Amino acid sequence: MTGEETDDEFEAVVAGVGERIDPDERERERMRDAVAALTERAEDAIADLPVAGDVMQVGSTARGTWISGDRDIDLFVRFPADVEREELESYGLAVGHAVLPEGREEFAEHPYVTGEYDGFDVDLVPCYRLDSATEIRSAVDRTPFHNEYLDARIDADLAGEVRLFKQFLKGIGAYGSDLRTRGFSGYLTELLVVAYGSFRAVVEAAAEDWHPPVRFDPEDHGTATFDDPLVVIDPTDPERNVAAVCAAENVARLQHYARELLADPRADYFSPESAAPLDAAAVREFVADRATTPVAVRFDAPDVVEDQLYPQLRKSLGGVRDEFERRGFDPLRAATFADESAVLLVELEVAERPAVERHDGPPVHVRQHAEGFFEKYADDSETYGPFIDGDRYVVERRREFETAAGFLESDALFDVALGVHVESALEADYDVLVGEEIGRLADEFGARLADYFGPAP
Amino acid sequence: MTGEETDDEFEAVVAGVGERIDPDERERERMRDAVAALTERAEDAIADLPVAGDVMQVGSTARGTWISGDRDIDLFVRFPADVEREELESYGLAVGHAVLPEGREEFAEHPYVTGEYDGFDVDLVPCYRLDSATEIRSAVDRTPFHNEYLDARIDADLAGEVRLFKQFLKGIGAYGSDLRTRGFSGYLTELLVVAYGSFRAVVEAAAEDWHPPVRFDPEDHGTATFDDPLVVIDPTDPERNVAAVCAAENVARLQHYARELLADPRADYFSPESAAPLDAAAVREFVADRATTPVAVRFDAPDVVEDQLYPQLRKSLGGVRDEFERRGFDPLRAATFADESAVLLVELEVAERPAVERHDGPPVHVRQHAEGFFEKYADDSETYGPFIDGDRYVVERRREFETAAGFLESDALFDVALGVHVESALEADYDVLVGEEIGRLADEFGARLADYFGPAP
Repeated sequence: MTGEETDDEFEAVVAGVGERIDPDERERERMRDAVAALTERAEDAIADLPVAGDVMQVGSTARGTWISGDRDIDLFVRFPADVEREELESYGLAVGHAVLPEGREEFAEHPYVTGEYDGFDVDLVPCYRLDSATEIRSAVDRTPFHNEYLDARIDADLAGEVRLFKQFLKGIGAYGSDLRTRGFSGYLTELLVVAYGSFRAVVEAAAEDWHPPVRFDPEDHGTATFDDPLVVIDPTDPERNVAAVCAAENVARLQHYARELLADPRADYFSPESAAPLDAAAVREFVADRATTPVAVRFDAPDVVEDQLYPQLRKSLGGVRDEFERRGFDPLRAATFADESAVLLVELEVAERPAVERHDGPPVHVRQHAEGFFEKYADDSETYGPFIDGDRYVVERRREFETAAGFLESDALFDVALGVHVESALEADYDVLVGEEIGRLADEFGARLADYFGPAP
Repeated sequence: MTGEETDDEFEAVVAGVGERIDPDERERERMRDAVAALTERAEDAIADLPVAGDVMQVGSTARGTWISGDRDIDLFVRFPADVEREELESYGLAVGHAVLPEGREEFAEHPYVTGEYDGFDVDLVPCYRLDSATEIRSAVDRTPFHNEYLDARIDADLAGEVRLFKQFLKGIGAYGSDLRTRGFSGYLTELLVVAYGSFRAVVEAAAEDWHPPVRFDPEDHGTATFDDPLVVIDPTDPERNVAAVCAAENVARLQHYARELLADPRADYFSPESAAPLDAAAVREFVADRATTPVAVRFDAPDVVEDQLYPQLRKSLGGVRDEFERRGFDPLRAATFADESAVLLVELEVAERPAVERHDGPPVHVRQHAEGFFEKYADDSETYGPFIDGDRYVVERRREFETAAGFLESDALFDVALGVHVESALEADYDVLVGEEIGRLADEFGARLADYFGPAP
């Protein structure tokens, strides 16, 4: 295929995707009407308060960068900086309940009201009206600044480019700054499109030019350094990396799929593909083919939000994996899944180790240590040695755990670094699955196991 | 036990050992008579040659440092430095055959005659008479210098101290500079006793003061540096370490047993103890108790002298062990035995590895390499992946050998660094024993297996 042919194909694919994801005039009008009605209600409610305040629509639906079908409306109610935080919260809730009589209170950094209006999901969030984003008191105060910055830079054409990039990131599973995905946030996506000028330019840069760490500083005002693969200094805050949450995997995933898309443009890169779930037999077949020893700990998923759950699961998985490494069971790969139950899965290369393990003593010539070591083990019938190896004493002691399952079933599991809610859940109860027994995970996690092993053979 | 009590005990033990190992007057007289008769024969034979020459007795029997029962007489015939090497060899053999009419020719660095006389084992060796040991043309030329140096420094009392030290080193298995033992040579033993003044002083220094590398330079003329645990600069050659062959294990062994002897003086430290051989059942019991996977390669011992055989066996064992390490079978310990057959034994912690092994590719952002890697594996149905892990592509490929035995039974065994005669022997034929099958080694190597595993349970 020549470059020109792929160029034409790229444009054709992108045009097709655009048609599918751009909200049409009817959708826009419904959105406009809903926002206008909600804003009016909010302004009426503010008028009843003893302080001034204004209403600001924020987020992708405010900037026209939303994807057809998204139905999130975010309205921020801004109060003067001299209002006490407690008052701000009560005013915010008052306005929220006035706008959304059926709405309910939620709590992020401070309380807000969420509810439905004419088929839209509406959040009504109080914040401070500040002169600069560097003065913010909580993360929500930053949002109006982001909105103003992008609003001034994204016209209708660029909004289409943003939609394409977002949809592409969704298709490849790298969209979202939630702590499960650790991908690209909406704000980051828009900043990158503004920086490069088009979806295609972003994709070409990622495919060809990015060598992490990649750094952008649109306002050229950054003051801090970051140890992240992608660093985009917030135009409204010189000390903040907008891409801080974006994992190396997701940067690499974007680079990989950017190349694939450019080499062979196809619309299916823009559609998230859910792997066909494996059944238990397929999982067992994979285990037999790989001849590894997967071990899994399964327990009731802690009842916390995903942004708490996934970091804890990852921390716990890392702790268990590291401990297996230290104990010689040689982890090959690991994964964690959560739904009703949660799973820490570590696939091991080594199923068993011997009853003995080598323990090096001091050099024989370091007299005091050497004599102490020798005397400690000389009459220990459970220990082989001391031998002399090179210039040292060496013994072979009894190993604590000969199998990985033995370790998982013991209290030693609780000595590894576990997430706090994971630890409580394990204290309540857990199952250990070994080898082909992990087939029993397929009922709940068949699709995740397909991500892990690949499609059914 | 007080220090004084152990002092008395030490002296009592040493006196008893001395009684056993000091040659009595009758033995000395027989030795003197035999040397006198042999020297006369040699001088007569030299008189018939067209060049001058003299006869010199060397070695421990020359210096009175031999142990009762030793029956080695070493006579060196020295010729002027201007004699051609070929002539020297033929003159030497002529004298040898005249002295030992029943003797036979052997070949070390050059040919010599060995034979029996009145119950003694006699070597008659030609060498050059030189002004300095730094001018030597072969190792045997050095011997007369060693003899002269020690002769001037070892009197009858010190000879007794040397005998004690030699016998102690024999008792702990550290005596001999042959390449099987890699221990303390007779010359080294005598130099250490000369340096310290007594057996006890050597033992105390080794127990308390030695921190390898330990360096002595009796003539304070050393010019070279050495990477050996024990460095004793040859008084007759500033560039030579007399202890070059002495392995770290044997230095440590001396230090260990020196402490044991001083703490609890007993005569049995002066008697080499041969371990009671294990039988096959005992070996199998050890393997089961340790739950390791020993693997052994057994083959016909190459027909070469021990000084060639053992370095080759060690090199081969090291090669196999390193290869097991690289392939993930985690060697715990290893040993090599030789008698009629030879054995490379490696005790493994890991019996099997999975069918797959992780293979890291380049970072995704290193475009050309990354694309090449991805394309190589993307359509390979035998490979899992490529996945993205961190910023890299990773695949899981088929492993070459899932078991250690599989490796040993394959041609890949011949890709490791093997000793040349070991390689030929393996090319002819070999057996692979795995796990409890190594019990079959007990018939030939029961005592060596007892050294390895310990006494039968």
